[in-house]
Amino acid sequence: MERLLIESALERVRHALEHNDIDQAVAIIESLRPADQAEVFSELDEEDQEALLPRLSPEDSADILEELDEEEAAELARSLPHHTLARIVEEMEPDEAADLLGDIPPEQAEAVLASLEDPDEVRPLLIHPDDTAGGLMTSEFLALRRRTTVAEALEAVRRWHPEGHVADHLFVVDRNGVLCGMVTLRQLILAEPHQRMMDIMDPEVISVPVGTDQEECARLMDRYDLLVLPVVDEHHRLLGVITVDDLVDVLQEEVTEDIQRLGGSQPLGGPYLDTRVTRVARSRIGWLLLLFVTETLTGTVLRLFEHELDAVVSLTFFIPLLIGTGGNAGSQTISTIIRALAVGDIELGDALRVLWHELRVGLVLGMAMGAVGYARALAWGTESAVASAVAAALLLIVLWANVIGSLLPLLASRLHIDPAIVSGPFMSTLVDATGLLIYLYVAKLILGI
Amino acid sequence: MERLLIESALERVRHALEHNDIDQAVAIIESLRPADQAEVFSELDEEDQEALLPRLSPEDSADILEELDEEEAAELARSLPHHTLARIVEEMEPDEAADLLGDIPPEQAEAVLASLEDPDEVRPLLIHPDDTAGGLMTSEFLALRRRTTVAEALEAVRRWHPEGHVADHLFVVDRNGVLCGMVTLRQLILAEPHQRMMDIMDPEVISVPVGTDQEECARLMDRYDLLVLPVVDEHHRLLGVITVDDLVDVLQEEVTEDIQRLGGSQPLGGPYLDTRVTRVARSRIGWLLLLFVTETLTGTVLRLFEHELDAVVSLTFFIPLLIGTGGNAGSQTISTIIRALAVGDIELGDALRVLWHELRVGLVLGMAMGAVGYARALAWGTESAVASAVAAALLLIVLWANVIGSLLPLLASRLHIDPAIVSGPFMSTLVDATGLLIYLYVAKLILGI
Repeated sequence: MERLLIESALERVRHALEHNDIDQAVAIIESLRPADQAEVFSELDEEDQEALLPRLSPEDSADILEELDEEEAAELARSLPHHTLARIVEEMEPDEAADLLGDIPPEQAEAVLASLEDPDEVRPLLIHPDDTAGGLMTSEFLALRRRTTVAEALEAVRRWHPEGHVADHLFVVDRNGVLCGMVTLRQLILAEPHQRMMDIMDPEVISVPVGTDQEECARLMDRYDLLVLPVVDEHHRLLGVITVDDLVDVLQEEVTEDIQRLGGSQPLGGPYLDTRVTRVARSRIGWLLLLFVTETLTGTVLRLFEHELDAVVSLTFFIPLLIGTGGNAGSQTISTIIRALAVGDIELGDALRVLWHELRVGLVLGMAMGAVGYARALAWGTESAVASAVAAALLLIVLWANVIGSLLPLLASRLHIDPAIVSGPFMSTLVDATGLLIYLYVAKLILGI
Repeated sequence: MERLLIESALERVRHALEHNDIDQAVAIIESLRPADQAEVFSELDEEDQEALLPRLSPEDSADILEELDEEEAAELARSLPHHTLARIVEEMEPDEAADLLGDIPPEQAEAVLASLEDPDEVRPLLIHPDDTAGGLMTSEFLALRRRTTVAEALEAVRRWHPEGHVADHLFVVDRNGVLCGMVTLRQLILAEPHQRMMDIMDPEVISVPVGTDQEECARLMDRYDLLVLPVVDEHHRLLGVITVDDLVDVLQEEVTEDIQRLGGSQPLGGPYLDTRVTRVARSRIGWLLLLFVTETLTGTVLRLFEHELDAVVSLTFFIPLLIGTGGNAGSQTISTIIRALAVGDIELGDALRVLWHELRVGLVLGMAMGAVGYARALAWGTESAVASAVAAALLLIVLWANVIGSLLPLLASRLHIDPAIVSGPFMSTLVDATGLLIYLYVAKLILGI
């Protein structure tokens, strides 16, 4: 739906720019929603962007910078004069402003901060790492005292003009700024004008210390269906608020990291096409080398059984088939278990139940694959003793792969390592070498070589 | 944090139940937050659950049934007498109530519906598939007319007592129920009492038709940072509202499916440990068999080169190493591309850029692996001609795996298939057979056999 809208807007903007009708281009962009504005904007040439941005209202420019990818936004910001950038930053949500200022050269950031009307709204946010509660929170919140009346609170809401779309929650603090409760706009409307915050507030507010990891924040907000999550310092003083739209972004980011890890690379930490080839290669080479070294074990195993392979050459034909099937069975298991751990369907205490589950699944699958493998080997004209060895090896390898696939993530979790790190490729590589050992040993026994 | 709290609560509840002090057990559970209540509850024996639930307040029971896994909730609901269940369902959010009623036997659901005070709140929700906008929406919303004044609207908010925690949004409809705008509580507070909804409402509300897929709803809410998403029928009449907490659950569910597919199995569609062994096995056997058949191509390739393998037996030792490395390089690529497609970092139109990106990454990685492979082969005492063949094959196979790993998901997307379906195992299997062909052909050329 919005794809068409964006294509058409983009075409009209380009057309206007070609005819030097910059007012028309500005008008088209201003008619769009922020997310769409940013998408149209990011498709334009750099020089068009730099020409357009100062002509848009600071509010719209702020929206666009908030919605663009971090690197694109920083690049654009770097090209702007300090006072133009300051006027835009003024209109950004403080948490987004802090993120942007952290991505441009420190001198420019200082100059922009110096030109801000209220730099203290942004400055404290600059010190927190991006992936913690402090890096996610905004300093835009309304804090009231316990004795404030509902009438006064409503008046405060009317006087307050936040930049961003903030959630409809007010916070109650004591004289030292210590968080003591939360009130929703709905509660304000339902209450009598003379009631005090302490009478209507919910005193049991879930909050997090400023250094809390963003994944933990997201988990808490998801679990307790929170729209806002207050962030406090070591004295439980209210520092800022995380809103639910940030949570969704965090969840998406964490899942991206998990999926990239599952595929056996380090997380890229940025949009794919904007990541340089050397950086993409760097994110993969470490694992690829480690896996290569592990995989050389297969060569060692094969040399161990050189005599047997020489005696019955047809054994060789089944090698990729057997270890490939083991790797596939293991991948199926490991991805299921890693996800079950991530969403909390299973915990460490369930290790034995998980193992028992996978042993039975492995037995069912192994028997099925063994039967199919036996038939396939005979159809190839393989002698029946070799076919039997293939079938027995398939059963054992699938069983073994299911065990490895379930134990590896549980073990990682036990060692407080992110289970997604034990990637599919890592498991396949392990199963390759051990599966080969199983196959050749079984063949040796059955064929008596 | 909440882990300890839950363990301790669980212990105290069990202790109370052992001493038949059911009041104490009820008191402990009622002191917890809904998500924690559900977790403690789900750890109890079935008979304890059945004994406890009727003793809890209907509000708390409703919260617990909402938070439990679908199957657990349905099982528990089935064990309750109709009137008890009706009292609980009365307190549930209508969308959750509808989901639960859809999971119990139709006769029981009918009996419960018949005992409800306002069955029309739930009944219409029963007809929509679970994974569409209609299945996600709740029928609890406040709809006002365009000429309603702010004072009247505030009065309506005061009189309204929704069961769930609803977002602070009011909707404006015309006399036929057609959605024409949205008003937040904040706007009501800021406005003058005599102003009318048509003056203060935001008329440009993003809404979705009732049959929209849940993934599309989640994407829209994420993109436009929406807290609520109204659902309309074909005449644009307001039917219900999706709230942001449902969005988070949808995102988690979709990611789980993607990760299970990436691992090469069909989505389980339920919590891991609650899924029967036969069902888990069924979700995997199809892919495992398909991959097995594909993987037998490796046997065909090996037989094709039987003469060469007989002539230079040491070629065999590198087979698993080479195809394993190809599979790993392909997995790294495919997981990155699938995720980049899912979050919208790349689109179909970027196919050539993606391919160019991966060709260069593949070249860098392939040269590195070729060099390492050459050194490793020599260290094993392999003759230098074979080592050269291994190095050249490694370079080509990694390059090839990167091409396959980037083209497969793009192709799937082009064919309107979920790219996550082209799982890692599928790609590995393809690369196994083709990589083998590359290796043996290169060896044949270099060794002149």
